[in-house]
Amino acid sequence: MKIDELYALLRRRGVLWPSAEIYGGTQGLYDYGPLGAALKRRLQDAWAAWFLGLSPDYHRIEPAEILPEAVVRASGHLENFTDAEVTCEKCGTAFRAETLLESVRPEGVDGLTPAEIGEIVRASSIRCPSCGSTALHVPRPFNMMFGVPLGVAGTERGYLQPETAQASYLAFARMWDVARRSLPLGIAVIGHAYRNEIAPRQLLFRMRSFTQAELQIFFDPAGFPVPFDRVASEELPVLRAARRDAGATEPETARATELVASGLPEFYVYHLVQTYRFLRDVLRYPAGRIRFFEKSDRERAFYNRIQFDAEVRFESLGGFREVGAVHYRGDYDLTRHTEGSGRDLAVTPTGGAKILPHVLELTFGVDRNLWALADVHLGRDGERTVWHLPPYLAPVSVGVLPLIEKEHAAVATELAESLAAAGVTVQYDDASSIGRRYARMDEAGTPYCLTVDGGTVGPGPEHGSVTLRERDSKAQERVPASDVAARLAPEFRLPRPSVR
Amino acid sequence: MKIDELYALLRRRGVLWPSAEIYGGTQGLYDYGPLGAALKRRLQDAWAAWFLGLSPDYHRIEPAEILPEAVVRASGHLENFTDAEVTCEKCGTAFRAETLLESVRPEGVDGLTPAEIGEIVRASSIRCPSCGSTALHVPRPFNMMFGVPLGVAGTERGYLQPETAQASYLAFARMWDVARRSLPLGIAVIGHAYRNEIAPRQLLFRMRSFTQAELQIFFDPAGFPVPFDRVASEELPVLRAARRDAGATEPETARATELVASGLPEFYVYHLVQTYRFLRDVLRYPAGRIRFFEKSDRERAFYNRIQFDAEVRFESLGGFREVGAVHYRGDYDLTRHTEGSGRDLAVTPTGGAKILPHVLELTFGVDRNLWALADVHLGRDGERTVWHLPPYLAPVSVGVLPLIEKEHAAVATELAESLAAAGVTVQYDDASSIGRRYARMDEAGTPYCLTVDGGTVGPGPEHGSVTLRERDSKAQERVPASDVAARLAPEFRLPRPSVR
Repeated sequence: MKIDELYALLRRRGVLWPSAEIYGGTQGLYDYGPLGAALKRRLQDAWAAWFLGLSPDYHRIEPAEILPEAVVRASGHLENFTDAEVTCEKCGTAFRAETLLESVRPEGVDGLTPAEIGEIVRASSIRCPSCGSTALHVPRPFNMMFGVPLGVAGTERGYLQPETAQASYLAFARMWDVARRSLPLGIAVIGHAYRNEIAPRQLLFRMRSFTQAELQIFFDPAGFPVPFDRVASEELPVLRAARRDAGATEPETARATELVASGLPEFYVYHLVQTYRFLRDVLRYPAGRIRFFEKSDRERAFYNRIQFDAEVRFESLGGFREVGAVHYRGDYDLTRHTEGSGRDLAVTPTGGAKILPHVLELTFGVDRNLWALADVHLGRDGERTVWHLPPYLAPVSVGVLPLIEKEHAAVATELAESLAAAGVTVQYDDASSIGRRYARMDEAGTPYCLTVDGGTVGPGPEHGSVTLRERDSKAQERVPASDVAARLAPEFRLPRPSVR
Repeated sequence: MKIDELYALLRRRGVLWPSAEIYGGTQGLYDYGPLGAALKRRLQDAWAAWFLGLSPDYHRIEPAEILPEAVVRASGHLENFTDAEVTCEKCGTAFRAETLLESVRPEGVDGLTPAEIGEIVRASSIRCPSCGSTALHVPRPFNMMFGVPLGVAGTERGYLQPETAQASYLAFARMWDVARRSLPLGIAVIGHAYRNEIAPRQLLFRMRSFTQAELQIFFDPAGFPVPFDRVASEELPVLRAARRDAGATEPETARATELVASGLPEFYVYHLVQTYRFLRDVLRYPAGRIRFFEKSDRERAFYNRIQFDAEVRFESLGGFREVGAVHYRGDYDLTRHTEGSGRDLAVTPTGGAKILPHVLELTFGVDRNLWALADVHLGRDGERTVWHLPPYLAPVSVGVLPLIEKEHAAVATELAESLAAAGVTVQYDDASSIGRRYARMDEAGTPYCLTVDGGTVGPGPEHGSVTLRERDSKAQERVPASDVAARLAPEFRLPRPSVR
């Protein structure tokens, strides 16, 4: 679907809508309604089950989301977390330089000074998209963090975290003591990140508040053992930096062993494959719509030694977009926070020598992937609109429908309650025709419906049985109501990686 | 336990610690570690299962947590969300007036002007708790919201939400269309609230960022039907405002029917009882440590028509503290937002007349209740330290322990993985003696341990069986490993209310 059509459907079904909608909305902020909030929670649970399932030494924490100024000074965000903007002197509108210059400079403007950006603007004779003027001006870079005063005096200053990663670095020393005092040690956070975007746009793609799921793995650079044999033969769709430099625009297929042979470390490729499997096997994005885009030396942040962005092709956005990434960050973060805090963050594993761990970061945009789950799985299927979500991600697991409200409500209600007590997410619906109710459930992604009818409540051979209808095939069969919970339970279990 | 001892234990076990600890901590902000984060998620899930289980017309949403200025102007927060402070002219320290005057004015200072507070300070000849000076000064009230500029120009202003309730009022119009266009309609939010506290203190009791679970129920004031017969005979520990005025300090037991006879609406008492049951039956606070404290006309906010605070007696804090509340807010909120937004929020249910719904608010402090779960359930039991958490709240459900690592690790790992695949939260522990491992699990609140030993792996009659140990009784029995998941599953199910 096109973006407008998809967004209209999601708004109408209460998946999401503009925040403070009755006040005209707030740019870059969205509210998730019942279906969206449930899908988001399941997506987060699926991420946690998969990535924390990689090792018993990967742990999930929940840190506060405000950082004191000393932290963002040490991390470099106070100085460098800026966005170049271009403002129109005639109409006053501000634009992100990167967006405005997309057509003339597709590689972006990271690292350029305002003067250099100004030169490109002048040379390209680009016009203001709002009013058409050429009076475009490039002011100082704009820090994208939201600052807040702490306390009455306002002398202490805090910042809404621009990414969840910093909180994991701050927690490393405490977690070293809490966990097994051994490496690798993984710290995962699912939390909000806040960025004062100059121009929020493309719905869930450039929001002012969004949710990240990130895993920071601290490891000994002398050795990060992984069960590489479990991924060795996997084939990944990659677009390498060197091939791009040579003009390639399409990904090629590379075996994990080939990537290692090309110089990437085994631990890196292992986690890249696990990321691929999560996108392909858990979120069920078609393999042909996934690619791993390698950032070149020029494109990635200076502290990242290796970076592949995980990208998905969005129909609604007309191309590939980043939904996650794997960053090898070296010892940058612990070095900076050792300097900033005065606390030596080097550790001495039992029987080993003192070392400053390196960091491998797996990052994942929760909102972007929620959008991808709509873009990829929600669409027309003949007359129907169906959201083909994997059953374990569907906001509602089972719809319970009395065929005739007056006659079948009692038994249907009882069935719904017994499923709910067994931990199944149920929605009871007795409004309108059975066809329209199936249609509503299809649109919401509900994988199974149970219909209670005359046979269920009557004395005949169908007594106690219900019609089980599967969403994608529309196949219906008669099953004993008492068997349903146990039969469907495996469908609702979150997949976990096989690591041994 | 005393607060210092309890906090030290929670820090050591990585339940929680000061945020940005390596930088000396940030006042009023805490990080939850693996055990704390897992407990917090389960507590939230338990709240949702219970309160959303009250009606299929109660829905959970996840709104953005930044409100535009027009919203907090309409809600009254811009003008009134202030805290009176007293500052010492000698040492410069600022104190909350309410805290400083607790001993001389236990009813608080809400509604008093700075001049009136200054008069009380002078009359009481109170001294600065920091330096002992009597040079105390009462400045203008201090707005406790954190403001943030939105966008480059900074002309648009947002505020971190001071409570989750406003987001539900903003969502009402959209939810009316998304849900069944009928009343009652409940909107639940579990999210962060932010308050720039003058003096954060008592750990999780006055934080600058904390988590609320709130349910706003919109209903027709002409009739809010509830299954009152399900709660009629329940006896509640209440401290009524009138009895307090007459000098009472201890709660009395009142039957739900008596509360209704005294003039409280049935819908109100019904939700008060369900709140009581959640605290007593789900969180398992002893009945004798719970009371419902009625706020008088003088004490409650002017828009609240009825207010009972749910209070729990904390050993670590030396008395009863508020952990939740039930507020009957009338039509205040939708009236204010109708005026503020220009959007008429009155609705016309099918076949009914146009009405502006009233609001019943159930509010619950997640962090405070997490602290209560430690205060009430974590303590010494002879030689042991045991966290007697209800099994469905425990961060780890089952500990899997190979008796001798070398001999039993393979079978134990396999068992742990099969339990994890079945959705059980497992922790595998092979470090140190079995007694020390049981002790660690007891302290973490793990309700069950499974020990794999020679019998399990040997060819004899105990082949395939493990020792199941229960935390509270320390009772051990031999059970087939293959039966464990099914046998324990009911223990891990979240309780739901019986509403029919």
